Amino acid sequence: MDKRRKPNSTERRRDLCDAAIQLLADDGAKGVSHLKVDRKAGVPDGTTSFYFRTRSALLLAAAERLAELDLARLQSVADDSAGSGVGDSPSRLSQVVIQSGREPELTRTRARYELTMQAARDPQLAAALAHSTDAFTKLHREILVQLLPRGAELEPAVVEDLSNVTLTFINGLLLRFAHGDRIIDSAAQLDGILAAIARGMLRSPEKGRLTGVDPARPAGRNKVKKRG
Amino acid sequence: MDKRRKPNSTERRRDLCDAAIQLLADDGAKGVSHLKVDRKAGVPDGTTSFYFRTRSALLLAAAERLAELDLARLQSVADDSAGSGVGDSPSRLSQVVIQSGREPELTRTRARYELTMQAARDPQLAAALAHSTDAFTKLHREILVQLLPRGAELEPAVVEDLSNVTLTFINGLLLRFAHGDRIIDSAAQLDGILAAIARGMLRSPEKGRLTGVDPARPAGRNKVKKRG
Repeated sequence: MDKRRKPNSTERRRDLCDAAIQLLADDGAKGVSHLKVDRKAGVPDGTTSFYFRTRSALLLAAAERLAELDLARLQSVADDSAGSGVGDSPSRLSQVVIQSGREPELTRTRARYELTMQAARDPQLAAALAHSTDAFTKLHREILVQLLPRGAELEPAVVEDLSNVTLTFINGLLLRFAHGDRIIDSAAQLDGILAAIARGMLRSPEKGRLTGVDPARPAGRNKVKKRG
Repeated sequence: MDKRRKPNSTERRRDLCDAAIQLLADDGAKGVSHLKVDRKAGVPDGTTSFYFRTRSALLLAAAERLAELDLARLQSVADDSAGSGVGDSPSRLSQVVIQSGREPELTRTRARYELTMQAARDPQLAAALAHSTDAFTKLHREILVQLLPRGAELEPAVVEDLSNVTLTFINGLLLRFAHGDRIIDSAAQLDGILAAIARGMLRSPEKGRLTGVDPARPAGRNKVKKRG
């Protein structure tokens, strides 16, 4: 009963990529070598080199595997939202983000940042990651609209600005999660913050692009109350 | 006249650190080795090894140099603000952030992210970076208060939440800058966004902690207008 079927080529590649993702998360990009992936995956020395000739090919395959996992997760969220899930509280967007700060997703969040840093110098890697980034951006925009005050008719340019700002906030949040800094702990809290940002940006006095607003008041004199 | 004074030990260390920072920005952490720093700084092979025995010591020295440069920049901003600069428009906070997306600061922004990723696995490195991060957080909070609607009496807890949210947004922004993604291009735009976030969070109906608010409305039905 203990005799295990030998994994086929596709399964073997996937296992090696999962081992590489774990190494990226634990030890960073410098922690990934063919031999370390062999050891992590528990396969004979030389296996990873056989499947992925170069380090570059190995990192690319890891990025593609990560994108595949991300897309599967986002797709399941999108499918749920298409059914009775629209308008869920907390939103599925916030649930996805908060999950990204907890295991098992946190490993992928960490690996994604390592690969993103590498991708700044590797266009192929950047392209592999872009697919899931685009899917997340799309989900983000769809769900964001549901968090806005009801009945508002929204200019596309305003939604684009708001989407850019909240997405940048989420980028920062995921980066803090990757470093173990859990400044927000629940999807409901995150919904609250996203809705507050939306309120503030929609209330902007100007009609034009929100990011073009210049509301800095000269010589504001606010005081923070003393505690106690 | 062309005869150059031989740099002393302190200057030599500083030059090597600056070369390491440039390598971190250009090629990432894996691009930093003792020999590469020698070549980058134009010094004889072995010089960097003489000053910094281990790779870890070299990265730590680079992080300390980066923190020194950051603190000098933030200090000059704080000094200006203490004079006639308070309430400047655009704010000095936003000026600092926008500068971080342009050379020569962009090199440091990139290097800082590389070191931050390394610091997740190196407490000494994390401590070296924490000093300038704390200084930036302090500046951020001071200037943020000036961007808020005038005359408001602000609960410390509210300012803390707001500061956390806007700082997370700025983290995300700097990360996008580091990857060459300039979604915001002027300090005035950034002031506008920070002020909008502040407005939204201050308008929150609850009296309690803003990040604890749960305003997600079930089944919001907003539509984005069609373009055209």
